[in-house]
Amino acid sequence: MQITTGEIASFLGGEVDGDPNVVLTGPSKIEEGKPGAITFLANPKYEEYLYSTKASAVLVDKTFKPQNRVRATLIRVPDVYGAISQLLNAFSGGEEIDRKVDHLAIVDSSAKIGKEVAIGGLSVVSGEVEIGDRSVIHPQVFIGKNVKIGKNARLYPGVRILHNCIIGDNCTIHSNTVIGADGFGFQPDETGKYEKVPQIGNVVIGNNVEIGSNTVIDRATMGSTVIQNGVKLDNLIQIAHNVIIGENTVMAAQCGVAGSAKIGKNCMIGGQVGISGHIKVADGTKIAGQSGVMGSIKEEGTSQFGSPAIPYSDFLKSYIGFKKLPEIMKKMAELEKQLKELKAKS
Amino acid sequence: MQITTGEIASFLGGEVDGDPNVVLTGPSKIEEGKPGAITFLANPKYEEYLYSTKASAVLVDKTFKPQNRVRATLIRVPDVYGAISQLLNAFSGGEEIDRKVDHLAIVDSSAKIGKEVAIGGLSVVSGEVEIGDRSVIHPQVFIGKNVKIGKNARLYPGVRILHNCIIGDNCTIHSNTVIGADGFGFQPDETGKYEKVPQIGNVVIGNNVEIGSNTVIDRATMGSTVIQNGVKLDNLIQIAHNVIIGENTVMAAQCGVAGSAKIGKNCMIGGQVGISGHIKVADGTKIAGQSGVMGSIKEEGTSQFGSPAIPYSDFLKSYIGFKKLPEIMKKMAELEKQLKELKAKS
Amino acid sequence: MQITTGEIASFLGGEVDGDPNVVLTGPSKIEEGKPGAITFLANPKYEEYLYSTKASAVLVDKTFKPQNRVRATLIRVPDVYGAISQLLNAFSGGEEIDRKVDHLAIVDSSAKIGKEVAIGGLSVVSGEVEIGDRSVIHPQVFIGKNVKIGKNARLYPGVRILHNCIIGDNCTIHSNTVIGADGFGFQPDETGKYEKVPQIGNVVIGNNVEIGSNTVIDRATMGSTVIQNGVKLDNLIQIAHNVIIGENTVMAAQCGVAGSAKIGKNCMIGGQVGISGHIKVADGTKIAGQSGVMGSIKEEGTSQFGSPAIPYSDFLKSYIGFKKLPEIMKKMAELEKQLKELKAKS
Repeated sequence: MQITTGEIASFLGGEVDGDPNVVLTGPSKIEEGKPGAITFLANPKYEEYLYSTKASAVLVDKTFKPQNRVRATLIRVPDVYGAISQLLNAFSGGEEIDRKVDHLAIVDSSAKIGKEVAIGGLSVVSGEVEIGDRSVIHPQVFIGKNVKIGKNARLYPGVRILHNCIIGDNCTIHSNTVIGADGFGFQPDETGKYEKVPQIGNVVIGNNVEIGSNTVIDRATMGSTVIQNGVKLDNLIQIAHNVIIGENTVMAAQCGVAGSAKIGKNCMIGGQVGISGHIKVADGTKIAGQSGVMGSIKEEGTSQFGSPAIPYSDFLKSYIGFKKLPEIMKKMAELEKQLKELKAKS
Repeated sequence: MQITTGEIASFLGGEVDGDPNVVLTGPSKIEEGKPGAITFLANPKYEEYLYSTKASAVLVDKTFKPQNRVRATLIRVPDVYGAISQLLNAFSGGEEIDRKVDHLAIVDSSAKIGKEVAIGGLSVVSGEVEIGDRSVIHPQVFIGKNVKIGKNARLYPGVRILHNCIIGDNCTIHSNTVIGADGFGFQPDETGKYEKVPQIGNVVIGNNVEIGSNTVIDRATMGSTVIQNGVKLDNLIQIAHNVIIGENTVMAAQCGVAGSAKIGKNCMIGGQVGISGHIKVADGTKIAGQSGVMGSIKEEGTSQFGSPAIPYSDFLKSYIGFKKLPEIMKKMAELEKQLKELKAKS
Repeated sequence: MQITTGEIASFLGGEVDGDPNVVLTGPSKIEEGKPGAITFLANPKYEEYLYSTKASAVLVDKTFKPQNRVRATLIRVPDVYGAISQLLNAFSGGEEIDRKVDHLAIVDSSAKIGKEVAIGGLSVVSGEVEIGDRSVIHPQVFIGKNVKIGKNARLYPGVRILHNCIIGDNCTIHSNTVIGADGFGFQPDETGKYEKVPQIGNVVIGNNVEIGSNTVIDRATMGSTVIQNGVKLDNLIQIAHNVIIGENTVMAAQCGVAGSAKIGKNCMIGGQVGISGHIKVADGTKIAGQSGVMGSIKEEGTSQFGSPAIPYSDFLKSYIGFKKLPEIMKKMAELEKQLKELKAKS
């Protein structure tokens, strides 16, 4: 794809500050820019790169004033981040497959397939499945019995959706993620052996949800494990049975949420966080990476850190103390000694 | 499936307290119960829901005495949890496939397939494989050369069992789990480059083992990585080469066990726990979530917490101190000041 | 495979101390050795097993002097670890597939396939893919559009390489690992909803890289996520978009590296470590298991521990203090009391 600085500026609703006829071949990071590249300056921390970049064009805020000479053509836009997103979309190619059912897919005759749906080779679509219009099922996907998938879904190679699960509109699920595996439920007998508790619920995923690769969302024991509209889950995440995750909550890679926990909406949860079972996390909670939330968080909008997690700034203060512990112990021994001497004197 | 309260009570060995002719259509949680649903009250914490539930029937302990008026029909049973399990089994449907080898499965002619075995489409069964009677291999499974699988196994879509591994009877392995990948063994040379140590052992899994989704159990360098009878492993778990896990140990999601560790029997290991290589964990050990066990645990039946892990109650006491560290530092400064003043006076 | 002690000694450049005609059937660990097995003694800690092992032959250092009577034949070699590696290679069988394109693989006509390449059944090779000589693509692998794979690669069942990614020579990727899934990039709007930032970069993997099972390496937003030559990644690891991992760095299972972090070369990173986004970790850094590295590490060759991570020995000293916190609080109360008494007296 080739496009000029002038065309891009017009497409983004911005203005060219320099040559409008420079031909651009693709986006790049500002520190890696080569001739033909378009890049951006959003964070002032990176301003130094603006003066040395070899990129041909740079998106900047419309009010930006360079401190030094800039070789690249500037494209001034009202919202740099918004413009980057539009730009990347424009250049994006991605993995595309034909909007048809591949002859090497196994599709049950009872499945209802919408318009302009792609089903890749070596995928399995089981009985009573419904797939909405314009959804793309890549090769090697498994869709179990009675699964319902909305419109504009995109399921990458190796995704497994087990029986009875429901996926809303505009959802993207990345490779090798498993939706609807059995929850981890076992009942011990008196000898210490475990008997399986059947897991007969399902997983219900709302609209506009994106789920990374190699993530697992277990079906409910009874009822549903629920991922609400707009939730974004990264890779390698564990969502146990009967968990509920509220709207527009984002969760970074390798988090784990234990059974029946209820996470509020608009939460931001860092990588490798663990959340205990049967607790509630209030709306708008932020949890720092590697924290372990072991009790309910009732107040909305707090920040948490540590394992077990406590309020963020409290953790930081205590951790300063932790680092000083060798010194604290030394001082304490000194105080004890001095006090003993004083007592002997008095 | 439809069944009456009377039929359910008879099936569970319980007694109807109310109308024995109510038609039930499926189970639900007590707080979500709708007409037609059967639910249960096992934990007294949820008793309030008994009086407001719209479910048509509720399993309760045979000795239970309601404090208020109950609209639902009660079914009194000797063991509520046991009854739930039976009930869920009764209502369970699950993913079923025909007990035959699908014409789109690739099955080597040297494989020995037992009676009433299902092998789903797009699965691969390699040479010299043996699969016991009534085992169900879902679609898109890979079974490598010379793998032996017992009776009544269930392997979900995307499971990979690599060459020479052995799986006992009555084992369930969920989607996209990998058994028998190479262990992580490399030998550095003097320049800092690593050379692979061949991993020529296998994985041996006992009877009645259940393993979640996207879990990995690596083959031994030499000999076997061993998962003994009755072990239950959740999702996204890492079991390294030459690990041994004792009978009826349960491990929650995202745990990692490093090479050659020996975990005893009847242990309960929380989510995201890490266990170092070459150590032993005694029988009956309980390890709290996110703990890091970095040395052997010799005494049986202890509880552990923290990273590095220490006895559970010690950790809790120290963590109270951790939270008080800012206050401790302040007090210490105050003590120092007072002591200085006293010394000046004396 | 059967071979005599004399043949093995000659193969390894060692000397037989005992009967050169003992027939060996395979390797084993010293504590599990059975007649016919060859084992080794490298770590003096295991010397006791030398005197009780039932193995028929034991590799030992050429200077080794037994303290007691040894029944097994000794094979004396200059470098025991090197010899083990050679030996395991000699006995190794592994999963092999025919060097041809299986008739049940889907291979796009525009793909360029090198000499002696194996492509297993039910694998997908998309348009414009290039695969180098002698590479082995096991069954059920997905290779997206325009992917380039070097010579002697080995991709195990269930590996997914998405469009435009590049893999060097001599790389091994284990089952169900995903290379080139979208990075986790979303831009919030004023209502708290997130819009996807297109991820249009790729993943570039150097030569001699080995990657475990169920690991995920995300494509860059723009540019490349880079895994340099000789890197070894274990199972269930998360590498986010735009990360760079330097040559010969090894990373144990379940580590997570957040977006745009730059890890130096020759680092050794323990299991379950988390590394924050946009930071740099210097060459030769060692990070203990479960640590959380939340700021850049500038000095080369240090050891780190804790969450947040601090220098290794500092962490250990502080952790001693952590364990003593209940005692510290008690002593402090005692000091306060004594001081109060003294003040009252004075």
